[in-house]
Amino acid sequence: MSEPLKVAIAGLGTVGAGVIKILNDNADVLSKRCGRSIQVVAVSARNRNQDRGVSLDDFAWYDDATEMVVAKDVDVVLELIGGSDGIAKALCEKAIANGKHVVTANKALIAHHGSALGAAAETKNVALSYEAAVAGGIPIIKAMREGLAANGIKRVYGILNGTCNYILTAMRETGREFEDVLKEAQELGYAEADPSFDVDGVDAAHKLAILASVAFGRKVDFDSVNVEGIRHVSFQDIQFATELGYRIKLLGIATETANGIEQRVHPCMVPLSASIAAVEDVFNAVVVDGDFVDTTMYEGRGAGEGPTASAVVADLVDIARGNLVPAFGIPTSDLMDSVPASMAGHRGAYYVRLMVVDKPGVFAEIATILQDNSVSMESVIQRGRSPGEAVPVVLTLHDTTEAAMLKTLETIGQLQTVLEPPRMIRIESL
Amino acid sequence: MSEPLKVAIAGLGTVGAGVIKILNDNADVLSKRCGRSIQVVAVSARNRNQDRGVSLDDFAWYDDATEMVVAKDVDVVLELIGGSDGIAKALCEKAIANGKHVVTANKALIAHHGSALGAAAETKNVALSYEAAVAGGIPIIKAMREGLAANGIKRVYGILNGTCNYILTAMRETGREFEDVLKEAQELGYAEADPSFDVDGVDAAHKLAILASVAFGRKVDFDSVNVEGIRHVSFQDIQFATELGYRIKLLGIATETANGIEQRVHPCMVPLSASIAAVEDVFNAVVVDGDFVDTTMYEGRGAGEGPTASAVVADLVDIARGNLVPAFGIPTSDLMDSVPASMAGHRGAYYVRLMVVDKPGVFAEIATILQDNSVSMESVIQRGRSPGEAVPVVLTLHDTTEAAMLKTLETIGQLQTVLEPPRMIRIESL
Repeated sequence: MSEPLKVAIAGLGTVGAGVIKILNDNADVLSKRCGRSIQVVAVSARNRNQDRGVSLDDFAWYDDATEMVVAKDVDVVLELIGGSDGIAKALCEKAIANGKHVVTANKALIAHHGSALGAAAETKNVALSYEAAVAGGIPIIKAMREGLAANGIKRVYGILNGTCNYILTAMRETGREFEDVLKEAQELGYAEADPSFDVDGVDAAHKLAILASVAFGRKVDFDSVNVEGIRHVSFQDIQFATELGYRIKLLGIATETANGIEQRVHPCMVPLSASIAAVEDVFNAVVVDGDFVDTTMYEGRGAGEGPTASAVVADLVDIARGNLVPAFGIPTSDLMDSVPASMAGHRGAYYVRLMVVDKPGVFAEIATILQDNSVSMESVIQRGRSPGEAVPVVLTLHDTTEAAMLKTLETIGQLQTVLEPPRMIRIESL
Repeated sequence: MSEPLKVAIAGLGTVGAGVIKILNDNADVLSKRCGRSIQVVAVSARNRNQDRGVSLDDFAWYDDATEMVVAKDVDVVLELIGGSDGIAKALCEKAIANGKHVVTANKALIAHHGSALGAAAETKNVALSYEAAVAGGIPIIKAMREGLAANGIKRVYGILNGTCNYILTAMRETGREFEDVLKEAQELGYAEADPSFDVDGVDAAHKLAILASVAFGRKVDFDSVNVEGIRHVSFQDIQFATELGYRIKLLGIATETANGIEQRVHPCMVPLSASIAAVEDVFNAVVVDGDFVDTTMYEGRGAGEGPTASAVVADLVDIARGNLVPAFGIPTSDLMDSVPASMAGHRGAYYVRLMVVDKPGVFAEIATILQDNSVSMESVIQRGRSPGEAVPVVLTLHDTTEAAMLKTLETIGQLQTVLEPPRMIRIESL
């Protein structure tokens, strides 16, 4: 049996503690799987004395993580601090420059600096591994870089944020509104005190940018992701979705189109018959369409101590086995720039909910505006009658461009008889 | 860039042709992914002149595959002939003995001889890769051996046979019986002329034995798989399942229990809320429960030219990248014997359908037999009235042992008022 793989952990939150637990609890089988043991040799965190449920006695303690990552007896640095810049980035750069493998769970870091870090790692012939950064415990990066390596990939999409999926599921099941369910999610620990990172789609966008890079062999291009969160989804929309045969999910969708790479995160109506419609609560799922394998789906827990630590340790196992793969599946010098497709040119079907005055002639006005913009209607639901008051009118529209849709909604929104800003949710055929 | 990886293909059916198509169509990106090209150098099949939709002009042709697999310029042998013994086994043994990597899609071969072949491959430090043998295009072997390597795995189960899943889906959707739908499946090419390998559960059992070995670190033990097919499932059962909140699926389930390894393939009632209940038609899915990652699911096409060839080429990519993993995740010398748990000791819930004479007192007789065997009833459905004629009585029974259940059913089956052999389907809580 070879020398142990020696690991230094920077950041001892729940994930760091989870990694130590796995390496303790499953040490025997891990040694068999790797042909060598995986040993934590050093740790660094803000507070040495915090109770983390694991003993740190056997590890060297560093107050200064930058010192730790260059220590002679360290083979791999686990970066579990977080944040796209600052100390996390500096640590990873320093570790790589000193010939250490880097494993991270940091989606923001990879979304912003992945290509540069990958190039640096390649130069030094060390791993830059980030399985835990996307969809938690689901081994989706491995599936895409290796399991589906035979395929050209044209589309990848998924439920990439468990908080949003939990909120949307709870809204549907309990009939409550967003703000109410968010508060509950915060109490349960499923949502942060400042929830915007999750509910405004930024977290999903980080993950999508990474998936798109691996899928299409292009540099990570987080800045081109079109992002829209779930704050504007109402229980009424969820009810109409069910009536129309859809579930509302926050999806991240990356597609290679003739016009470039389209990356978008927004609430979607997905057909109830689609597998991903059945992925509920905090679960994540990723769907990959390959040119030979066709559609494959991967589902599991996207966050939490155990699942995230599971992904981190899987990366360590690869390194311990000596199995390296380029960070984004191909050498970074082969990664093309990601030419973004404009969202205005996106084509798709749309759901629109209007709150209109219930009086004759209103619908004729709307129909005329649709016609003027060459937007063609698939169905309309006008439910309930309260003459003179606000009633919902729900339209579903055949495939059209985002630009035409936005222009249509702007014009409709200016009608005196339309009492609230129109609500629009994109329909995905999947 | 390094030397090309040189591949010899034994067997040129649809999968072999699919592999050649992928290596042609995706040659550029495969070279980038591997850092070298993957080249077919030799092929062997029964009929040289058959039209396979791909040109064989660039490959050396061997009438005798055993000659091909020892050829000097061959790095990897693809065994795509099939069959658990005979030429397929002989070829793999010979290839390994001569230091060639082996990639195969042959589930019967791995289920029967996987441990021995794995040991031989280990001695020669070559790969024995078989991703395509289980669940077609789904990279489930990679997920278990690598992606979930941090975890102890206690249970793995799945829909492992697309033909059965297609038949069960079509029966439910169209209200037809097994024989009728099977005939249609045969016409569509989803089922073989001799369907027993699929519909009697043998194919799923091969795959389950392989999954169990990887999951639990034990020698493949196909002979201990309890196998029951889907021939006895009627549309009536499917209707009752829906009424009770279940879908009927042919599952393969492997569990590490206190009594040993339980491996079983049989029709199951799974709750409609379970993700796997939504996996329909020819799709396969595998669920893995890990001690840290919790539940993960993998879904995709389990057969067909493209998906199967995708898995074969993924194995080639690993070899081209130089990334080897022990055949069953740990060195074969560490694989324990698989101590089988007896099916009689299995505990679970049960669905039972009886056809009884509709007359007073019948149910009292049945209830007494249940009581005598300490089998406790959860629900009973007695629908329709036709005095003196046969009517269905459906029971669901709380967790009990298989032995108690079988004894109960035997006694019930002897009642004069019970007109057909009782039908039993196990209920899985999942």
